[in-house]
Amino acid sequence: MRILSGIQPSGYLHLGNFFGMMQRGIRWQEKGEAFFFIADFHALTTVGDPEALRRNIREAALAFLACGLDPKRTVFFRQSAVPEVMELTWLLSTVTPVGLLERCHSYKDKLAKGIAPTHALFAYPVLMAADILLYRADIVPVGIDQKQHLEVARDLAVKFNQAFGPVFVLPKEDIEEGVATIPGIDGQKMSKSYGNTLELFGDREEFRRRVMAIRTDSTPVGEPKPVAGSVLVSLYRLVSEPQELEEFVSSMRRGGVGYATLKKELLAKLERFLAPFRERYEELKAKPHVVDEILEQGARSARAAAAPTWESARRAVGLL
Amino acid sequence: MRILSGIQPSGYLHLGNFFGMMQRGIRWQEKGEAFFFIADFHALTTVGDPEALRRNIREAALAFLACGLDPKRTVFFRQSAVPEVMELTWLLSTVTPVGLLERCHSYKDKLAKGIAPTHALFAYPVLMAADILLYRADIVPVGIDQKQHLEVARDLAVKFNQAFGPVFVLPKEDIEEGVATIPGIDGQKMSKSYGNTLELFGDREEFRRRVMAIRTDSTPVGEPKPVAGSVLVSLYRLVSEPQELEEFVSSMRRGGVGYATLKKELLAKLERFLAPFRERYEELKAKPHVVDEILEQGARSARAAAAPTWESARRAVGLL
Repeated sequence: MRILSGIQPSGYLHLGNFFGMMQRGIRWQEKGEAFFFIADFHALTTVGDPEALRRNIREAALAFLACGLDPKRTVFFRQSAVPEVMELTWLLSTVTPVGLLERCHSYKDKLAKGIAPTHALFAYPVLMAADILLYRADIVPVGIDQKQHLEVARDLAVKFNQAFGPVFVLPKEDIEEGVATIPGIDGQKMSKSYGNTLELFGDREEFRRRVMAIRTDSTPVGEPKPVAGSVLVSLYRLVSEPQELEEFVSSMRRGGVGYATLKKELLAKLERFLAPFRERYEELKAKPHVVDEILEQGARSARAAAAPTWESARRAVGLL
Repeated sequence: MRILSGIQPSGYLHLGNFFGMMQRGIRWQEKGEAFFFIADFHALTTVGDPEALRRNIREAALAFLACGLDPKRTVFFRQSAVPEVMELTWLLSTVTPVGLLERCHSYKDKLAKGIAPTHALFAYPVLMAADILLYRADIVPVGIDQKQHLEVARDLAVKFNQAFGPVFVLPKEDIEEGVATIPGIDGQKMSKSYGNTLELFGDREEFRRRVMAIRTDSTPVGEPKPVAGSVLVSLYRLVSEPQELEEFVSSMRRGGVGYATLKKELLAKLERFLAPFRERYEELKAKPHVVDEILEQGARSARAAAAPTWESARRAVGLL
C-alpha cells in the first residue's frame, strides 16, 4: 500500500503543525510504503520570494527529519526534483475541462480573498493530480479542505484512462478526521496568521517567554483553577504521561499553585518533549550536506517509482 | 542571432505546406542560428490519437529533413525531448494573469468553433512562451494569427523579470508577411480541410491522378487558354525556371494544346522538382534510426542551449 503526502514549505514549524499534521505524516511510514514530498512547485503559487522559499524548503526538510521522518522508510523528496510531474501535468491538462477548474472551491476562495488569480493558482489542482497519479498512490490522506482536489485527481485519472487506456490507478479517498485543534498562546487555534504559535525550533528564550505569556484567567493563587478550556491543560496533555497530567490537573483543582508555577511546569514538559527533536535538528542543521544527500536519494527513489507511470502515460498519448 | 520556429505535426505534408511554411522554416538556417522543433506537446491539445501522433511526428521529421533541413545547421528536435519546457511553463504560470489567457483570440476562436475547452488549450500560450523564452530566441517568425501569442510571451518575460530579476531575453517580433497562397486542385487555397492537396510524399499514382484532376475551364483544345487565375500556371510557376514558365504560358495563350497535355507538362515539372526530396525521403524512411539519431542529437543540443536559462529561472524563483 503506497501512501502519498506532501506539505507546502511555509516557514518555521510550530507545535500546532507538529500535532496537527507532521506527526501524522511521519507515522505513515509505519503503515505502508510512504512517499512524502516538499511541495515547492506548489509553493511558487504563493511565495514569490526566492530567499524565503529556499529557507522554507530547508526548514521543512530539517523539521521533518528532526521529528522522526525516517528516510530509510519514507521516500522523502522535493517535488521539483522530479520534473516528470510537470510533464504529466500537461498530459492531464489535455483531458481537463476548464470548467472543472473554475468550479474548484479553493480557487474560488482565493479569488474571494482578493488574491490575484494567476494561471498557476488556476492550474494547481492539475499539478496536484499529477503528483498523486505519478506515484500511483493508493492512499492520499488529505484534510477536508483538499477533498475536492482529490476528486479532481480521480476524475482526471478516469478521463485519461478512458481516452488513452488504463494508465492510472485511482487513488482512494482517505479524508482525515478532524484532529484536535491545538490552541495557541492566546487560546485561539495555533496558527501563524494569529501570531500565537510556539515554534518547535526557534529561539529558546523566546519560546520560554511565549509559554509564560499563555493566556490564563485571573483566579488568585490560592483558589482552584478552571480546567475546562484551559490552554495549559490542552498543551500539557500533548506532552506528558497520563499520570503526570493527572497530577497537573489535580494541582490546578486543589488551588494553592499560581499560574506562573503551572506555566513553568508546562514549559519543562514541553522542553523535555522537544529535546530529542531539537537535538537532532541542531545536528542536521550543522550538516547541510547530509540533508541534501537525503533529499537527493529520495528524489532518485521517487523518480524510479515514477518512471513506469510516466512512460506508460507518454506511450499512451503517443509521445513514445 | 537565434531564430526559433516550430510546427505542429499534423500528418502528411503537401505542396501548400512546402511553399507556405516549410521552405521558409528551412531557410532560416542560412540566416542565423536556427532552432526548429516539432511541437508534439502542443499537438496533444488537438490530436488525441496516439498512433496518429506518432505517425505525424515521424512524418514531419522525415519531410523536413527530406526537403533540406540540415541538422548540422539547424537544431532540429522534438519539443517533448526537452522536459525543462514544461517546468518553465509552470514558473511562467506563476506570473500569468488568468485574464490574459482568457483574452487570447485563438482560445476564444476555438471555443466559438465548439471545441471543448480543455485546460491544455487554455494554457497553450504559456507553453508557447516557455518554448520561446527557454531558448532565448531573438527572432520568432510567426504568422499574423500567432502575433498575440508572441505578445503574451513578451508580457510574461517582462512580468517574470520584474518579479524575479533579469532572466529572460525579450523575443523580437517578426511577423511574416503573407505568403502567396498556393491553390489546391479545386482552385481554393490548398488545405487538408478542403481535400484539395497534392501530397509531397504520398502515393505517386494518386499524385498523378490528382494533378490530372486539377480544375480547369472548358476552353476547347484549339482555343487560347486563360492564364489569369489558372491553377496550372500558379503551380507551374513554383517549380519551373522563368524560361520554362514563359514557354508554358505561351503555349496556353497560343491555343492548340489541350488541358490534358498542359497537366502532363505540369506533372513532369512537379515530379522533377520533388524528385530529390522524394529520393531523400525514401532513403531516410528506410533508415529510421538515422532520423532518431538526428532528433536525439538535436534534443541534446537544445537541452544544452536551454540549460543556462532554465537554471537561472530556477535560481531566480528559489528552487535552486
